[in-house]
Amino acid sequence: MAKKVAVIMGSDSDWGVVQKAVKTLKQFDIETEVHVMSAHRSPAEAAAFSSSAKENGFGVIIAAAGMAAHLAGVLAAHTTLPVIGIPVKSANLDGLDALLATVQMPSGIPVATVAIDGANNAAFLAIQILALADESLAARLEAYKEEMRQGVLAKDAAMQKKVEEL
Amino acid sequence: MAKKVAVIMGSDSDWGVVQKAVKTLKQFDIETEVHVMSAHRSPAEAAAFSSSAKENGFGVIIAAAGMAAHLAGVLAAHTTLPVIGIPVKSANLDGLDALLATVQMPSGIPVATVAIDGANNAAFLAIQILALADESLAARLEAYKEEMRQGVLAKDAAMQKKVEEL
Amino acid sequence: MAKKVAVIMGSDSDWGVVQKAVKTLKQFDIETEVHVMSAHRSPAEAAAFSSSAKENGFGVIIAAAGMAAHLAGVLAAHTTLPVIGIPVKSANLDGLDALLATVQMPSGIPVATVAIDGANNAAFLAIQILALADESLAARLEAYKEEMRQGVLAKDAAMQKKVEEL
Amino acid sequence: MAKKVAVIMGSDSDWGVVQKAVKTLKQFDIETEVHVMSAHRSPAEAAAFSSSAKENGFGVIIAAAGMAAHLAGVLAAHTTLPVIGIPVKSANLDGLDALLATVQMPSGIPVATVAIDGANNAAFLAIQILALADESLAARLEAYKEEMRQGVLAKDAAMQKKVEEL
Amino acid sequence: MAKKVAVIMGSDSDWGVVQKAVKTLKQFDIETEVHVMSAHRSPAEAAAFSSSAKENGFGVIIAAAGMAAHLAGVLAAHTTLPVIGIPVKSANLDGLDALLATVQMPSGIPVATVAIDGANNAAFLAIQILALADESLAARLEAYKEEMRQGVLAKDAAMQKKVEEL
Amino acid sequence: MAKKVAVIMGSDSDWGVVQKAVKTLKQFDIETEVHVMSAHRSPAEAAAFSSSAKENGFGVIIAAAGMAAHLAGVLAAHTTLPVIGIPVKSANLDGLDALLATVQMPSGIPVATVAIDGANNAAFLAIQILALADESLAARLEAYKEEMRQGVLAKDAAMQKKVEEL
Amino acid sequence: MAKKVAVIMGSDSDWGVVQKAVKTLKQFDIETEVHVMSAHRSPAEAAAFSSSAKENGFGVIIAAAGMAAHLAGVLAAHTTLPVIGIPVKSANLDGLDALLATVQMPSGIPVATVAIDGANNAAFLAIQILALADESLAARLEAYKEEMRQGVLAKDAAMQKKVEEL
Amino acid sequence: MAKKVAVIMGSDSDWGVVQKAVKTLKQFDIETEVHVMSAHRSPAEAAAFSSSAKENGFGVIIAAAGMAAHLAGVLAAHTTLPVIGIPVKSANLDGLDALLATVQMPSGIPVATVAIDGANNAAFLAIQILALADESLAARLEAYKEEMRQGVLAKDAAMQKKVEEL
Repeated sequence: MAKKVAVIMGSDSDWGVVQKAVKTLKQFDIETEVHVMSAHRSPAEAAAFSSSAKENGFGVIIAAAGMAAHLAGVLAAHTTLPVIGIPVKSANLDGLDALLATVQMPSGIPVATVAIDGANNAAFLAIQILALADESLAARLEAYKEEMRQGVLAKDAAMQKKVEEL
Repeated sequence: MAKKVAVIMGSDSDWGVVQKAVKTLKQFDIETEVHVMSAHRSPAEAAAFSSSAKENGFGVIIAAAGMAAHLAGVLAAHTTLPVIGIPVKSANLDGLDALLATVQMPSGIPVATVAIDGANNAAFLAIQILALADESLAARLEAYKEEMRQGVLAKDAAMQKKVEEL
Repeated sequence: MAKKVAVIMGSDSDWGVVQKAVKTLKQFDIETEVHVMSAHRSPAEAAAFSSSAKENGFGVIIAAAGMAAHLAGVLAAHTTLPVIGIPVKSANLDGLDALLATVQMPSGIPVATVAIDGANNAAFLAIQILALADESLAARLEAYKEEMRQGVLAKDAAMQKKVEEL
Repeated sequence: MAKKVAVIMGSDSDWGVVQKAVKTLKQFDIETEVHVMSAHRSPAEAAAFSSSAKENGFGVIIAAAGMAAHLAGVLAAHTTLPVIGIPVKSANLDGLDALLATVQMPSGIPVATVAIDGANNAAFLAIQILALADESLAARLEAYKEEMRQGVLAKDAAMQKKVEEL
Repeated sequence: MAKKVAVIMGSDSDWGVVQKAVKTLKQFDIETEVHVMSAHRSPAEAAAFSSSAKENGFGVIIAAAGMAAHLAGVLAAHTTLPVIGIPVKSANLDGLDALLATVQMPSGIPVATVAIDGANNAAFLAIQILALADESLAARLEAYKEEMRQGVLAKDAAMQKKVEEL
Repeated sequence: MAKKVAVIMGSDSDWGVVQKAVKTLKQFDIETEVHVMSAHRSPAEAAAFSSSAKENGFGVIIAAAGMAAHLAGVLAAHTTLPVIGIPVKSANLDGLDALLATVQMPSGIPVATVAIDGANNAAFLAIQILALADESLAARLEAYKEEMRQGVLAKDAAMQKKVEEL
Repeated sequence: MAKKVAVIMGSDSDWGVVQKAVKTLKQFDIETEVHVMSAHRSPAEAAAFSSSAKENGFGVIIAAAGMAAHLAGVLAAHTTLPVIGIPVKSANLDGLDALLATVQMPSGIPVATVAIDGANNAAFLAIQILALADESLAARLEAYKEEMRQGVLAKDAAMQKKVEEL
Repeated sequence: MAKKVAVIMGSDSDWGVVQKAVKTLKQFDIETEVHVMSAHRSPAEAAAFSSSAKENGFGVIIAAAGMAAHLAGVLAAHTTLPVIGIPVKSANLDGLDALLATVQMPSGIPVATVAIDGANNAAFLAIQILALADESLAARLEAYKEEMRQGVLAKDAAMQKKVEEL
């Protein structure tokens, strides 16, 4: 049976960023569970979720958090599933704090980090991982890649008009 | 059949960092291929390798590069396999340039970034991904996690002596 | 025959920044071709364009991209023409990611980097390069330089009024 | 009965930095317990220690960690005791990663952060906190402050010789 | 008798940030005194306040300042009470200047630094410190921690609806 | 005769920042000359102005510029008068580029740098310098310092109301 | 007649970095003149050199400087020739100061910036520019590019041994 | 009578950097007093020194400190004399902390900041300030400027040999 993806955010204020990941996962028909869990305010729930994620049918965990973004690391501490971290930009420091707190993990406990606010890429990375065991999913990723390429070509064509009008 | 991992470095001077990943992969009996390929000096080879990596039996690509570290991104552009990026610290800027050039990928083309010089974690992340389809590998990861825990406990015990001797 | 300049942007969302370069090139009557091409979404097109740019009559390639800005580097990998990179500021990190990803190129593959969002200077640099083989173009650059100087003098004169009114 | 201080480090490689805190605490006759515990490798032990720290007679927890330094935050999540964080400089980024991962805590879960590698000040801060309920400890802190002042005066006197010899 | 908390800000323009600390302290029925004092414009008043804070019944001093944020350090120089520093974001540099000027204190004079604009956590840290000598305050902190946990659970429940509506 | 102050800005777009310096200088009755001069667009005029500034009765030169802020350094190269640099924040990098380009001068050619956009302090610094030879000016500075102190005390008094109303 | 390249360094202490550029230029038989000139200590000489560089047969100016690296900008202010800037790492800040002071040039006066200490690439960029008017030089650049590619292939082959020996 | 210069350092460990300032001041026959004084460990002495510096015959105060470098700001708070700040590089963060803590002073209390570890320039700036009232000192500065220029010319001549030998 196909594995599920968990999308965990540290605060519901991250939803504006995180929903892009959920939309992309749904678009690829990945069964997705979304939760608000905090490394600091509900650490027991976060640990429990992560510890049982594998046996509950999850294949990948995506975690989004800002500031001293510990959520992805805390989840990674309790599972051998791949954990993807989305550093979320907060009011200050332009997301650099969340990026460093997410990516600079010590040896033995990796977090697969994507760009600041890069929720979409967290979803694509999860799909790439799941597609290793699902050829039809891999084919859809190939198709999406071709779509992106066509999109660039179309924008290039459209750009010629803008240049003429300059 | 089990999927292979490719470990690509942008320059053979990265081998000091990268070999830790190769050792860890071997320790987990992952079939691993190692290459020097440059996004800028041998771009055609890099593109060709990545384009055919899936059909050649690879499941994950690990790419290590320093400075304006484009290697992981260039490989990711040509495959739907998950690509893991290791930002390598160079002579200047303490690896911040490589980190940003690796992690800040545009939407649609993720690179799973680990810590600066975090070769070991790149290997663990690759193993976690492959373990989704390999229960015995997953069990070995669990065992390794328990080993790490025991290692910390042992160090804690050893620390008590150091404290007494202070 | 006079060489052309190519202005390539990684996304049509960069047009707001890039059009200043195109305007300046047109103002100096440089034949200019503008394209949207992505190092990650249409890498084959980017490589093909760059590989044949010289024989297609281009003298300089200008590339603008944000975040992990690989476009200029990827184009530079496929040509011996001078490539000018414009780091484009994105939503986060104030353009520092694009600057480092553009300028910190490894030995052998230079990218002539201008300021963050410095599209105008990319154009001037391209014109300076083309003017090496075109004395009338050089003369127009000299005239422009004198115009800038006169502009400063005029602003200095105008400033005297503002100071009085303070 | 006087409260104890716990000094927790994420790795025994932090001991070079952390021992300065332990020495200072001993010098002030504070009962101190020292442990190696990892937010990522032994998270259950860390959570258990912190959860029971108050009932076990601790008044303050000092936590030292490098890179994506989550240890202080993880301990703070499980206790209402004040937690002091020492960001430890690692091989890269000069300790900035540890500083941001320690200090940028979300609302509700503070970590009292001191300077990068500032183990001594972590101890002084713990002593200041304990001294609120211990006048003799407060008096010793006052005496230490006066000692520091005298030390500066002595160094100023000694400096006069160096200046003459210049 | 219960100790008071002093909340000092370097400029009344910091009040927007600082009032969150005062509200939290009041909510926990901590007697609080609030002052505008400047390390640079009224240094004598700041020194005098800090020097006599302990004998005037204060247990903790909270200091908020921006830019070259010296206020917390200057207050810490004149007291053995714990001093908590809030780095305040100003017009430029996103608060990094205030963070470094607050946290990087030399050995012997700690400032317990919280996040940029982290006024709420400064208050919680002060309450945690005072709660060491006040079991009922400790119990209220425990209750608050449980409230935060319940808040996260409630937000998680509410999130499920948002996900369905996506 | 009293020496004049020159206030030079690299672009008239800096006037919004720079006028605060001019106002403060006028408030202290310092004879002030204001100019737009560019290190890059009118370098000869800048060099000529600076070379003759001393003989033309100036005592201090204030220079404001953004981005790769060379103006203060270029002026300092041509005079032995003290040159004060104001790094001006531009569209990107929050003024860090201008700060480093202004303050990191090589040995032998100092620029007295004030805070980013710190035009007011540039004026105060100039007045402090001129006051060394003008006791009445020194007295006015002392009075201003006392005014600032009174201002803080007044704001502290006003703050008490705000706190009550909280 | 072939145009010359000028390599200007701000201090003879930059020679360790800069000589790589000179060697590369000689290797490609480019007539090269090397000078020590300072934007701040010998500004008149720098201005005079740059003003007459074009009529003296130069096609490109390369300028290397550290700290508040104004040299490239000052030279660019006096010529319409392309000016290439090499930011040189000094004792502090890892070259970031020189990078920003070199690259963040205002509109109208570009400096073609290469990587920190990237002297070799400065030379290659100059050669690329001169090769626009010299087909045999272009052919040598193509050959060099192929050599680099062969070098990577050779290193890849050599790497296979290292991997076996691991 | 000629005014004296005070050189104050926060710790005698700064002497390695600071002595360059003292040497330069002596070389120009400026009467100089050197002290170790700490903003945090001997704040009363620092305040007292600064408050009476003017009446004690000082014209300029130079202050050197590292980390959260408050010394210059604290001295500036107690005097109307110009205060020059030298940010000193410490073990971490490459001096950026000291630079920001020194330069980012609030309005009304300027610190004339020079480069990180820029002790020599602090001395030159002080001499430039004193030279406003001392024509012979100004003449010596002019002579020194010419010496520097000759030094560059000599190094340029010497460089020609190195280039030949390449």
